[in-house]
Amino acid sequence: MAKQKKMVEDITSMDVDFAKWYTDICKKAELVSYTSVKGCMVIRPYGYAIWEHIQSILDGYFKETGHENVNMPMFIPESLLDKEKDHVEGFAPECAWVTVGGSEQLEERLCVRPTSETLFCDHWKDIVQSYRDLPKLYNQWVSVVRWEKTTRPFLRSREFLWQEGHTLHATAEEAIEETERMLNIYADFYEKDLAIPVVRGKKTESDKFAGAEATYAIEALMHDGKALQAGTSHYFGDGFAKAFEIQFQNKDNQLQAPFETSWGMTTRTIGAIIMTHGDDNGLCLPPAVAPIQAVIVPVATHKEGVLEKAAELRDRLKAAGVRVKLDDSDNSPGWKFAEYEMKGVPVRIEVGPRDIEQNQCVVVTRPDREKTFVSLDDLETVIPQKLQDVRDIMYQNALENREKKTYRCKTIDEMKKALDEQGDGFIHAMWCESEECEDKVKEETGAGSRCIPFQQENISDVCVCCGKPARTMVLWGKAY
Amino acid sequence: MAKQKKMVEDITSMDVDFAKWYTDICKKAELVSYTSVKGCMVIRPYGYAIWEHIQSILDGYFKETGHENVNMPMFIPESLLDKEKDHVEGFAPECAWVTVGGSEQLEERLCVRPTSETLFCDHWKDIVQSYRDLPKLYNQWVSVVRWEKTTRPFLRSREFLWQEGHTLHATAEEAIEETERMLNIYADFYEKDLAIPVVRGKKTESDKFAGAEATYAIEALMHDGKALQAGTSHYFGDGFAKAFEIQFQNKDNQLQAPFETSWGMTTRTIGAIIMTHGDDNGLCLPPAVAPIQAVIVPVATHKEGVLEKAAELRDRLKAAGVRVKLDDSDNSPGWKFAEYEMKGVPVRIEVGPRDIEQNQCVVVTRPDREKTFVSLDDLETVIPQKLQDVRDIMYQNALENREKKTYRCKTIDEMKKALDEQGDGFIHAMWCESEECEDKVKEETGAGSRCIPFQQENISDVCVCCGKPARTMVLWGKAY
Repeated sequence: MAKQKKMVEDITSMDVDFAKWYTDICKKAELVSYTSVKGCMVIRPYGYAIWEHIQSILDGYFKETGHENVNMPMFIPESLLDKEKDHVEGFAPECAWVTVGGSEQLEERLCVRPTSETLFCDHWKDIVQSYRDLPKLYNQWVSVVRWEKTTRPFLRSREFLWQEGHTLHATAEEAIEETERMLNIYADFYEKDLAIPVVRGKKTESDKFAGAEATYAIEALMHDGKALQAGTSHYFGDGFAKAFEIQFQNKDNQLQAPFETSWGMTTRTIGAIIMTHGDDNGLCLPPAVAPIQAVIVPVATHKEGVLEKAAELRDRLKAAGVRVKLDDSDNSPGWKFAEYEMKGVPVRIEVGPRDIEQNQCVVVTRPDREKTFVSLDDLETVIPQKLQDVRDIMYQNALENREKKTYRCKTIDEMKKALDEQGDGFIHAMWCESEECEDKVKEETGAGSRCIPFQQENISDVCVCCGKPARTMVLWGKAY
Repeated sequence: MAKQKKMVEDITSMDVDFAKWYTDICKKAELVSYTSVKGCMVIRPYGYAIWEHIQSILDGYFKETGHENVNMPMFIPESLLDKEKDHVEGFAPECAWVTVGGSEQLEERLCVRPTSETLFCDHWKDIVQSYRDLPKLYNQWVSVVRWEKTTRPFLRSREFLWQEGHTLHATAEEAIEETERMLNIYADFYEKDLAIPVVRGKKTESDKFAGAEATYAIEALMHDGKALQAGTSHYFGDGFAKAFEIQFQNKDNQLQAPFETSWGMTTRTIGAIIMTHGDDNGLCLPPAVAPIQAVIVPVATHKEGVLEKAAELRDRLKAAGVRVKLDDSDNSPGWKFAEYEMKGVPVRIEVGPRDIEQNQCVVVTRPDREKTFVSLDDLETVIPQKLQDVRDIMYQNALENREKKTYRCKTIDEMKKALDEQGDGFIHAMWCESEECEDKVKEETGAGSRCIPFQQENISDVCVCCGKPARTMVLWGKAY
């Protein structure tokens, strides 16, 4: 097999060089491949299958909460992007511009969408007239382009895949509620389905999305102690609506501007999975999004009945709704064990002649490598339970890592000391709400404001930076 | 309701102006909306839901036959597009070009993919070394851009959604087999799921895809007698592989170039559904891709028990796997009947106080408006059966329309006469295989060569144009 070329030993240890470990995993697990297109990547079948499961689960949550999918053009005429002042200032510097179509120079250049607020507003202007037309609860699954200078697979690339939800409401209250609802859907998805604990909070003024009144985010801590913004949800007030002249007749027969939200989650999520759960043996995938949830490795396949039994188990598990693969290739069992550990398959099932005699198999869970003997009669109940166990173990490990790397600090010196001596992590510290202090903390410690967590703690009564009275606890960290 | 603004009477009759009828349907059924981006459209929730069902069914067929989804960049550097001579000649004139990224002029301009053969080859060059790495059976669901001058919703737009399958094989035989397999999957999908009969055949030399050795296509006849190319499948031989220097070690330890195919189906399929099945009352959707398969319209909703019974029926049908909607809005039943006819919902269920007394409901099928009284006890078996009936009626109607509009002609004069007197349609006529005759037929009759059907008939022994001996029957038609 071609895969024999690929050895687990090729993966750099995460403690030696975390960045190298990360790109090794991306390549060796065949998640992505570099391309001739600078800053863009090929998402290979195994990586894309993870994304398909992410899509399928999230799309279900969106539809359950009344959202509908649509598709907007990928181009935005420059004049349209220009309509909302803050928005264009935020995005224009990183746009890719189409200037030639066919053989002609375009009269107006088109940017390849970096995000689609302007397109949704331009559409709503045409179709929203009355309060009866509201709310509009839209979403689209597309790719967007931002002309980044330095790129890394999944984490930062010039083109990336995402979903962008855009909604329009008759009242500010309803729009704010939507912003919070979607943030909670993201948070629950991360915690329940991806087994990644997150902090829910609000971005500071300087860190808001271009054009938003408020940006909410979930923040996750990666294995190396760096923070990753995992999903954002924005409340726009009626700013965009006014800029785009969207008006509706309200219940009192008055014309007014509606209120808007948007929210997005990207392929960066795959990066978060890798960096939260992976180890020196490779990937470790949350069962909910694992392309293969259980792999069956037959042992001593030359012995009569082994392959037949293995195929029978595969069919039984498939019928029970488990995404199962039987690897009956002629690679050695040892090679297969390493291969599927590297690919992060949550559960491995080993079955050989002696097992079959005793009507049992060996089940090994990926994160803790725990072995259990399981009666073949119980397979349909035990394997789904093991998948649940794997998710729970993964969540617990991630939570412990985060707790271990969360520091509570009262001064910048304490922050520096924590980061220097204990390594990167989340810092809880008070803030006076001045942008000056926010900048200074980042400058001196390297840790920026990640968010103002909804769940506040009173670390002290004064700002970690200036010492003035402070009531807001900020989550600080170095970020991807 | 906002929808009250929208009246069925607004739809132009298809016999009066088919083109206007088509765009009226697109707008009134809320499938698409025009945008500020010239030549691009918004696919609205109802239209996009149809596409989601198309995607889901096709994606299932692709996966059942061993294909895997991937994602390639949306940009192609000019030098990459240039590598295969015929390909670049075919596509360069209709590319959109990105020349500026961020605030900098790019050193090399990037085209927004019009199709992705070049990107797949560029990737395969890196990952294919041995016959063990083959076949590669890839697909992606993305949008592509072709800088069209005149555009129409779904049928021709500057950006459209599609799937593009790309595969690589060790032998020519295997690649040709794949090309045929995928054409047959498309044809079966059209006939079985969309109830649209198609002709399977091979394109003539002049009508091949840019860079292909052979192009196969399925052709459908629209209600107005015009042909629509519904899906294509291309065999490339080893031309691209050689241009991109893809080589693999075969079983005899020799380096050789592999063989390639590609195949695609687009959102144009929604146009084919509209123009095959629609009528003066609006859309008529094949049940397999209808966002709403059955709508329940309660009658005399002020009477006790009606809404409760209607909700019970909805829940029962939902549990039976039917995509059902209960419209309990305060619009009149008559308005609702017209509305859901316009939206093409295959089955309507009417239920009022007297029906409930008699433990029955009225079921009306969209294409023939046939009414049946159905016992409420039988709903779970009758409605799925009715959906199957609707598909069968639709297929039969479409087939009859096609047969009625298929003419067998021996001379150009017969072709002209048929088209002039009987209206547009498919013409079966012999061809000597010279490009000159192909061009001349088109010039004189307006009908181009659609394909050389696999199922040949011997219409005469001589070319319809030059009168020289001919053994090839061509399907001719005016095309969308």
